[in-house]
Amino acid sequence: MPVGLKPLSVLHPVAGVRLGTARAGIRKPGRRDLVVMEISPGAHCAAVFTQNAFCAAPVVLARNHLAQAAPRYLLINTGNANAGTGAQGLRDAGACCAALAGLAGCAANEVLPFSTGVIGEPLPVEKIVQGLPEAYAGLGGMGWEDAAHGIMTTDTAPKGVSRQFTLHSHPVTITGIAKGSGMIRPDMATMLAFIATDAAVAPELLQRCLHEAARLSFNRITVDGDTSTNDACVLIATGKSTLPCVTDSASAVYQTLASAITEICVELAQAIVRDGEGATKFIIIEVSGGANEEECARAAYAIAHSPLVKTAFFASDPNWGRILAAVGRAGIGDLDLERVSIHLDEACIVQNGARAPDYTEEQGREIMRRAEIAVRVDLKRGAHGVTVWTCDFSYDYVRINAEYRT
Amino acid sequence: MPVGLKPLSVLHPVAGVRLGTARAGIRKPGRRDLVVMEISPGAHCAAVFTQNAFCAAPVVLARNHLAQAAPRYLLINTGNANAGTGAQGLRDAGACCAALAGLAGCAANEVLPFSTGVIGEPLPVEKIVQGLPEAYAGLGGMGWEDAAHGIMTTDTAPKGVSRQFTLHSHPVTITGIAKGSGMIRPDMATMLAFIATDAAVAPELLQRCLHEAARLSFNRITVDGDTSTNDACVLIATGKSTLPCVTDSASAVYQTLASAITEICVELAQAIVRDGEGATKFIIIEVSGGANEEECARAAYAIAHSPLVKTAFFASDPNWGRILAAVGRAGIGDLDLERVSIHLDEACIVQNGARAPDYTEEQGREIMRRAEIAVRVDLKRGAHGVTVWTCDFSYDYVRINAEYRT
Repeated sequence: MPVGLKPLSVLHPVAGVRLGTARAGIRKPGRRDLVVMEISPGAHCAAVFTQNAFCAAPVVLARNHLAQAAPRYLLINTGNANAGTGAQGLRDAGACCAALAGLAGCAANEVLPFSTGVIGEPLPVEKIVQGLPEAYAGLGGMGWEDAAHGIMTTDTAPKGVSRQFTLHSHPVTITGIAKGSGMIRPDMATMLAFIATDAAVAPELLQRCLHEAARLSFNRITVDGDTSTNDACVLIATGKSTLPCVTDSASAVYQTLASAITEICVELAQAIVRDGEGATKFIIIEVSGGANEEECARAAYAIAHSPLVKTAFFASDPNWGRILAAVGRAGIGDLDLERVSIHLDEACIVQNGARAPDYTEEQGREIMRRAEIAVRVDLKRGAHGVTVWTCDFSYDYVRINAEYRT
Repeated sequence: MPVGLKPLSVLHPVAGVRLGTARAGIRKPGRRDLVVMEISPGAHCAAVFTQNAFCAAPVVLARNHLAQAAPRYLLINTGNANAGTGAQGLRDAGACCAALAGLAGCAANEVLPFSTGVIGEPLPVEKIVQGLPEAYAGLGGMGWEDAAHGIMTTDTAPKGVSRQFTLHSHPVTITGIAKGSGMIRPDMATMLAFIATDAAVAPELLQRCLHEAARLSFNRITVDGDTSTNDACVLIATGKSTLPCVTDSASAVYQTLASAITEICVELAQAIVRDGEGATKFIIIEVSGGANEEECARAAYAIAHSPLVKTAFFASDPNWGRILAAVGRAGIGDLDLERVSIHLDEACIVQNGARAPDYTEEQGREIMRRAEIAVRVDLKRGAHGVTVWTCDFSYDYVRINAEYRT
């Protein structure tokens, strides 16, 4: 059960984007596992990919295609990651792109491939090719919800966010979907996210906007510290809105649009953590008072990745010593632990590096029973801060990942 | 159940060291939880402590005392770590040292305190002080086995190693005990280890010997990536053997003695992992072919810390993609994944960055069912290598750490 994840709200169509899905039986029969996104001519696409040196064939090919041509189609399959598949994997990804290009009458390098699922098994190209006509025939502007289902793997719920608002009297829509629930950590993870707006944005500005949004959202979540081979996040600007093309990063219109896109990415990123494998709690970790952002992130991830902290959250055990120990081992030079304070929600649990005098176990236990808990650490060394979102570590995490391939 | 951990063999007395224990009821009644080690005058002690910036009161005090005087007594309690206890914690540790000094007729700074157990609760000084006479009265050369029991926390079995051999016709004994099973990672962890020899070794050489031994043993194990606040490892050289004092690091006698001490530390370190919280498998990770030792260690720990790899071992699932993905995210610059090979025991599972052509799932499954498995990664970039020992990640790890304080 995802933690505090709201049911999917209406995902508004974005002019210039059509989506279609199919049940191609890639891994399990009867499951929506193939998604095609069509992008109108003239749109711009920005993308960020996994930082893992072991990146999957579709990531390699998508990067190549993106450098060669403006994408007209995104082709996404679940059930098989096409990773660790060597030269054959590249050929297989290429064959799928070529098959969609043949149906659609475009060039193969106008198709970007995305795969997620089991690593190291050959991509079932034939099943994907056979499923393509159904997905292609079903292309429509209302396909976002089905697509949100179609990109799921161990996700227990679809993830999507949509906003409509007015910018300088022009209506603008942003809609995004995402998947991912394990192998999630900073610098992208086993996650795919596809966000589209009908605003027109100059290509370099669009890429900048996506980088900034990903830095504050998808790169600030962690479930288990593992980075996947297949992560990708795509931001599409179709330019179908009547809003004039956004070209100036200092303009109010860019700031507003970029903020909205970042908010959507944050909401999608949090949805991924809320549905983290085995998650029973949603944990917000705010580290402030750092001399720089980097050391705040080190402390935040040391907490977020600690199995001892995560199992304590699972057990609703206010074991604040484990949190302090994680800060202590984060490798922050000259850290004076005796100045550090830590809050759990409204309660100060650590003051000057020791248990706060007014803190009681009862207070801690009451807070630890909540489904959403904020851990706020003040390093008292400077003015920088970082927020990271994570979840607890439960029996079900072990079960899900022990049984994943069986 | 520890994985492949042999029952405690005979722990030979070391002339110049006497041990006594007591049941002080520190955390649970009836449990041996207090250990006193007496060191004869003229002995030398070397020590290494946790690198965690959040270090416990006994660690602070032990470091201070060690700088002031040659230790005559080690005082070890389990059940309470006296960590995160601020100024009161230092006073409490000092009071325990003073109480033992009073019994023994030495100075308080000739006592080194060690604590392990729950963080953040006040040390029950009165119980410790009340238990001291029993432990002191029981001091004897045969007390190693009881002491091995007396330092356990979540350990399911005592850990001790003992060797007797002849050096230049002089008989020499080395005996060591250790504890620790969670919060274990490089740079020391929740572990305590006490090793003594009757050889005489010059102080600076003894410290060097311990550093090198710890680097290749206790600093090469990891259970969950967490570093504790209380780690300590002490090496005592009493000089009671007839062997002349070892003063030259280039001498054959030093090399032989240092090798034996390293071997004992490796065996104790491996025992800690074999008894890792919830461990069902003992995993040896050998990374070779690195351009330097540091990058080999990065790759080895990326594998050893990956919850996805560890749950796959628990499930006996030969999910080699997770191992390769962990290598890929280790942050090794310019790593060419397409040259990497990976073996599981005798089977080559990854060749040139993809599944080895001859590898079969059946072969992988057969190997993964073994209780001890070696993962050998060849980076094919250079001549350096590192070996790390770890265990798998099971339901029981979650249970033990979720229930630890209840």
